[in-house]
Amino acid sequence: MPDTPPPRGFPNTEYEARLVRAHEAMGAARLDALLLTTEADIRYLSGFQTQFWQSPTRPWYLVVPKRAKPIAVIPQIGETCMARGWIEDIRTWSSPHPTDDGVSLLCATLKECTGRGGTVGAPLARETHLRMPVQAIDALRKALNFADASPVMRKLRMVKSEHEIAKIAHVCSLVSNAFDRAPDLFAEGQSDIEAFRDFKIECLCQGVDDVSYLVGGAGPGGYSDIISPPAGRALERGDVLILDTGCVHDGYFSDFDRNFAIQKTDEATQRAYDTVYRATEAGLAAAKPGATSADLFHAMQAVLEAGGALGNAVGRLGHGLGSELTEPPSHAAFDDTILTPGMVITLEPGMEFAPGRNMVHEENLVIREHGAQLLSRRAAPEIPIIG
Amino acid sequence: MPDTPPPRGFPNTEYEARLVRAHEAMGAARLDALLLTTEADIRYLSGFQTQFWQSPTRPWYLVVPKRAKPIAVIPQIGETCMARGWIEDIRTWSSPHPTDDGVSLLCATLKECTGRGGTVGAPLARETHLRMPVQAIDALRKALNFADASPVMRKLRMVKSEHEIAKIAHVCSLVSNAFDRAPDLFAEGQSDIEAFRDFKIECLCQGVDDVSYLVGGAGPGGYSDIISPPAGRALERGDVLILDTGCVHDGYFSDFDRNFAIQKTDEATQRAYDTVYRATEAGLAAAKPGATSADLFHAMQAVLEAGGALGNAVGRLGHGLGSELTEPPSHAAFDDTILTPGMVITLEPGMEFAPGRNMVHEENLVIREHGAQLLSRRAAPEIPIIG
Repeated sequence: MPDTPPPRGFPNTEYEARLVRAHEAMGAARLDALLLTTEADIRYLSGFQTQFWQSPTRPWYLVVPKRAKPIAVIPQIGETCMARGWIEDIRTWSSPHPTDDGVSLLCATLKECTGRGGTVGAPLARETHLRMPVQAIDALRKALNFADASPVMRKLRMVKSEHEIAKIAHVCSLVSNAFDRAPDLFAEGQSDIEAFRDFKIECLCQGVDDVSYLVGGAGPGGYSDIISPPAGRALERGDVLILDTGCVHDGYFSDFDRNFAIQKTDEATQRAYDTVYRATEAGLAAAKPGATSADLFHAMQAVLEAGGALGNAVGRLGHGLGSELTEPPSHAAFDDTILTPGMVITLEPGMEFAPGRNMVHEENLVIREHGAQLLSRRAAPEIPIIG
Repeated sequence: MPDTPPPRGFPNTEYEARLVRAHEAMGAARLDALLLTTEADIRYLSGFQTQFWQSPTRPWYLVVPKRAKPIAVIPQIGETCMARGWIEDIRTWSSPHPTDDGVSLLCATLKECTGRGGTVGAPLARETHLRMPVQAIDALRKALNFADASPVMRKLRMVKSEHEIAKIAHVCSLVSNAFDRAPDLFAEGQSDIEAFRDFKIECLCQGVDDVSYLVGGAGPGGYSDIISPPAGRALERGDVLILDTGCVHDGYFSDFDRNFAIQKTDEATQRAYDTVYRATEAGLAAAKPGATSADLFHAMQAVLEAGGALGNAVGRLGHGLGSELTEPPSHAAFDDTILTPGMVITLEPGMEFAPGRNMVHEENLVIREHGAQLLSRRAAPEIPIIG
């Protein structure tokens, strides 16, 4: 098999390098400690990897002092898993707890790091949330000064290391293999529920760890909605079928889609496919260091508008990609994030091309010195007819 | 196939009944509106079902007025999917947005519902979080009075309807089928990564929609940790292998595990298995209307202690189950939740029986008038030797 998986996990040097960058960013932002509460943020600086995040019951905390290694403040059930990684200072409590679910332990740890009058940074701004009870946030804010650290975490996580890129490249390759098998997987008369299930099995057979995200849709000459689950409708001759999947290898996501015509297609669909294909080409050409996310948006949007786009409800034409399905930046007119080598992004031009009929394409790539390096295998230039 | 899936979705009468109960609870708590932000809470009262929650970028809001149907305040990308359900008042904005990502629309909607001086309820207490930026929470709190609505949502969601129970029963049956195939799936020499992948494929082949959660472990005579992902270790003769999975059918979870001995076992392992099996029996006998979660805890804990338990890092011996992998209540000494017919729970007695060696069992059941009705097919009374 050509798709040899990269090694699992990271060498400790990866976490050391991340911490150096975190400390630099914290210094520039005058933060004495960082408080992280979400799966992706905690994993980024601790290596703590578990699907146990599916359980909403318990809060998990990582505290990053300004000049030392992170401290885990976590439920006892996670101690062994956390100790597998590079974190040494692990403080636990028995959770769930009826009156003090880790708050006093967390508060004491933060105070130890900030000293009197210091500032705790936490992600507080748009596109973030704190995964902890509001009552616990209030208790901390009574005892400590808080400031927004969204820009710190955003900047840190947006540029990927070669180790991270290798994981994303691997899962993109496996999903490309799975999409190549579409002619064997999908057919007229098949229920969309069965089509989705068969595709998930195919992705696992190709070697992905998880099919964490699979949405899509099908409809005569185009689909009306791409985020609903399948509803049991049978695929029909003339349908356009889209599958948009985020699969995972070792904690890193792919996120791209493919479109298929069931048995036949029409001119409007072919024209829409061609428009969105060319919009992606324009995005690929524009994806160079120094360009902004807004530049990518305008490059793709110009092609879509010339192609007769009626609109697009997605709010952007692609985004960052990594340990979450979607990460900053957003390819939108408002986002002036400058692309730099190592950023992994999607290009996702889409449009409504006739009332109730949409066409969305998506590719994954990494920004290199010379420009875009595709991680997904490029979609076919014309809509494949299958089934 | 005996496992005919129940119909997907719910009739509108299901949502109407939920709303009646919500309005009663809101009245008792003197709340003029509810603000919901998480996948499970929003789905409960709107039927909005999509894996798009995997994308952390956009916030989603459901506002429940005290005497009217819920109002969805959501990113435009979700409008078509939301409109498939029973919600009629859908207010959207183009998200992501750089300066006002739905906050002013949400604030205006809440004010419309509460009038001057009214109170908005939102889940603020333990085991909850608000999935929205802290800065947005602060903006709302400047304009509106907030009170904790955790008890309202907890009480509403804890008792399941027959439609909900049918979905959980179905996925439990499918996962029971998958575990029955363990002797064909797992063997000495197999990498734990392959074992997990093969089990995920088997669950999908049995008919589950998603294998959202699969953790476990294996080790000589017992495992040290049950929440870590597989690391590439090969299964060895004498290992105890545990797989703990949360699979999904139509948005509802199973959550149970099974233990297997690879080729041989020893007396200490057999004794530990027997102890935890009998603890589950004690829990099943105690699981009657009128008993509390604490009663279940004590019934199981007595057997574990008599069986030589050294400890248990989990913090409880089971929990509620439904549209999330873990829900209230917690079978712990502190939880005096009274069991009532329709509650779906897990029994999850576990113990460290020798240093670094754990044994955990788990079953899923629904509380009926007469007592426990198992939803998972009961584990074998002695540890199965396979591979």
